[in-house]
Amino acid sequence: MVIGGGFAGLWAVRALRKAPVDITLIDRSNHHLFQPLLYQVATAGLAAPSIAAPLRHILRDQRNTTVLMGEATRIDTAAREVVMGERRIPYDYLLVASGATHAYFGHDEWEKFAPGLKNLDDAFAIRARVLSAFEEAEATQDPEQCKACLTFAVIGAGPTGVELAGTLAEIARHTLKRDFRNIDSRQARVLLIEAGPRVLSAFSEDLSAKARAQLEKLGVEVRTGAPVSAIGADFLVAGGERIAARTTLWAAGVAASSLGKRLVGDGAGELLDRAGRVRVQPDLSLGAHPEVFVAGDLASVTCEGKPVPGVAPAAKQMGTHVARNILARLAGRETKAFRYTDFGSLATIGRHSAVAQLPRMKFSGIFAWWFWLVLHIYFLIGFRSRLIVLINWAWAYFTYGRGARIILGIESEKATHGGKEEKSG
Amino acid sequence: MVIGGGFAGLWAVRALRKAPVDITLIDRSNHHLFQPLLYQVATAGLAAPSIAAPLRHILRDQRNTTVLMGEATRIDTAAREVVMGERRIPYDYLLVASGATHAYFGHDEWEKFAPGLKNLDDAFAIRARVLSAFEEAEATQDPEQCKACLTFAVIGAGPTGVELAGTLAEIARHTLKRDFRNIDSRQARVLLIEAGPRVLSAFSEDLSAKARAQLEKLGVEVRTGAPVSAIGADFLVAGGERIAARTTLWAAGVAASSLGKRLVGDGAGELLDRAGRVRVQPDLSLGAHPEVFVAGDLASVTCEGKPVPGVAPAAKQMGTHVARNILARLAGRETKAFRYTDFGSLATIGRHSAVAQLPRMKFSGIFAWWFWLVLHIYFLIGFRSRLIVLINWAWAYFTYGRGARIILGIESEKATHGGKEEKSG
Repeated sequence: MVIGGGFAGLWAVRALRKAPVDITLIDRSNHHLFQPLLYQVATAGLAAPSIAAPLRHILRDQRNTTVLMGEATRIDTAAREVVMGERRIPYDYLLVASGATHAYFGHDEWEKFAPGLKNLDDAFAIRARVLSAFEEAEATQDPEQCKACLTFAVIGAGPTGVELAGTLAEIARHTLKRDFRNIDSRQARVLLIEAGPRVLSAFSEDLSAKARAQLEKLGVEVRTGAPVSAIGADFLVAGGERIAARTTLWAAGVAASSLGKRLVGDGAGELLDRAGRVRVQPDLSLGAHPEVFVAGDLASVTCEGKPVPGVAPAAKQMGTHVARNILARLAGRETKAFRYTDFGSLATIGRHSAVAQLPRMKFSGIFAWWFWLVLHIYFLIGFRSRLIVLINWAWAYFTYGRGARIILGIESEKATHGGKEEKSG
Repeated sequence: MVIGGGFAGLWAVRALRKAPVDITLIDRSNHHLFQPLLYQVATAGLAAPSIAAPLRHILRDQRNTTVLMGEATRIDTAAREVVMGERRIPYDYLLVASGATHAYFGHDEWEKFAPGLKNLDDAFAIRARVLSAFEEAEATQDPEQCKACLTFAVIGAGPTGVELAGTLAEIARHTLKRDFRNIDSRQARVLLIEAGPRVLSAFSEDLSAKARAQLEKLGVEVRTGAPVSAIGADFLVAGGERIAARTTLWAAGVAASSLGKRLVGDGAGELLDRAGRVRVQPDLSLGAHPEVFVAGDLASVTCEGKPVPGVAPAAKQMGTHVARNILARLAGRETKAFRYTDFGSLATIGRHSAVAQLPRMKFSGIFAWWFWLVLHIYFLIGFRSRLIVLINWAWAYFTYGRGARIILGIESEKATHGGKEEKSG
């Protein structure tokens, strides 16, 4: 049984496609999400279906697999059962790959002011917030409020924060420039706020400096060494300075899914690391329960003395490795230790800007951006999504347009303006 | 000033693009919606951005127009001001085109069990409900519950009801047929329930009979003469029979936006028709206030003794006509009476099935379907949307796939299964 249809879970299931096993894949949502492009949905560049595919559609021809949509509430390792509400599902082998979520470092009250970006609902909420801020700026007659509406703060200068800030600057400077009458969208400020000393700290110092220069060229104000101490509905305090901002986005912290804690049980806190991830054996199994494996963002693993990062390729590699270890057990062979192959890191910043740090080379700028583009389209699941994304991007590239600028979830009074009921004609 | 960015409002604004006027367009949402294809979003065939475009983007080059997103809460016809919250905006001429919404004939308590389809949020709610019903059927071990989960009732056999029922049958019979392990999606029942004696009552009797035959060929159970007397969470009573159904969709009634009532004021009930629409003068103005016009679904108009139907072409024609009458007033000329040009009616039923009733000819079946397809793609706003929709449909046509089968809005516990935070790599 596999819990979680992200990269780790899905790659494990796929690696077992020819194995004589019955697989049940459980996920809270009905789709696999291509997380590396989620920021594009949040910034109105792509529609949700372009980066998400139903799990049961992806696996429809893998006859040894049943997909169940629902929440694994508890894992009874003694009885070898997963509890889903009132139902208990027995397993012989279990992979827990329920991923991670954003963490507010003990400030959970910040969540409502500074939403994070983990799933499609988050992306829609962020899209609505960003677009509504411009709408409010256009409508208001109070210059102070207008200024706050046109100030966007992104907290955390990891890959997600950098992508969000770069894209927001592009939207303000190009996409929206002709759309408003009372405001000039190019006057919008985009701040990227980082507690640490530099952006993209996982990259080398020179690439990090290049990324910063590219961000600034796009119009982003980068503030490093500026820890956030307070966030409210229309302000935040970063590095001691109070900034009036109606829109604050959170890209700073990650914590493992709470299922990790429920998996190891009470009083086994030493099995979890600081971020709540499960410390696993070198073969990715749980020490006390060799039939239980953990992979992806939920797993705390070191390889050659270095922690394995929470990135998509690591999750895919772990998922595939768990599948191989399960096959080894079934065949009566020994399991093998997981070894992470680092293909390098890549972060996009905005139009024509990206940084790439590969094992044998580093580069940045327009070539890195094209490299990023080709790679991400290549890795997108499903031919159709790739084609649609390609067309959307080609369109956006030439027009600076963003095709998905739709605000959803406007509180619904029963009467809708400008509707049409009857069809045809 | 124009309230409502639907077909009537938007066409009026566009018709005034060269006029020496300042136009303010107010809408609750930020987008114009191509309502005739909304059922495709609800049934996971299209993504939202394919049928919606931001109003300010559509009008970005029309410099005499300001778009404001917000709700017109009241119209002060004496002071000639529209009230938006705390703000009052004066007007010289006003067009109210705030459309219609679904009506439950005095049974508002049915709304939560049988959602209607008027805007994108409705479409997402319906999509989630339909897809979740299949998920629940796959997960449950109770055969009665499974049967109720696989029963879909659509109430109202107008164009929207027929499209929804036809598409649901196609999804069950083709799209999902290989996706499940415990259920056979082809066993799903789709009921189309109509109080009147026939489906598509706006069409001639022979086309109506053909539509019914086409629906039945697709696997839809059509029940005419079956008024609905009760709806609950997992059942409905239609024509006296109790049917166990977890999913009921409402396509039966329309009522005008409540702004109509607020426009004419208390004690002027005689100015509204039974559906709450505003009875206007032949030139579409309000008798007591010749500077106020009403158009689209909110207007109750007769032309040559027949009521003008609530369809998109009528709304566009009314919008354009109001613009011309305003120009006439500005030039000191007389306004003209509105005349509706009926280009005919067209309703699609499902793959290869549609009926068309044109002024000089009637036809049905595959030719009507292709006719419908070409026409709807042609009328879609914006080249890019047309192209994306065309690709989506071409894909769906050859594979029976539906690209947008994503369930959104799953209640969010903080931990997400299968997420990935860090990007790149």
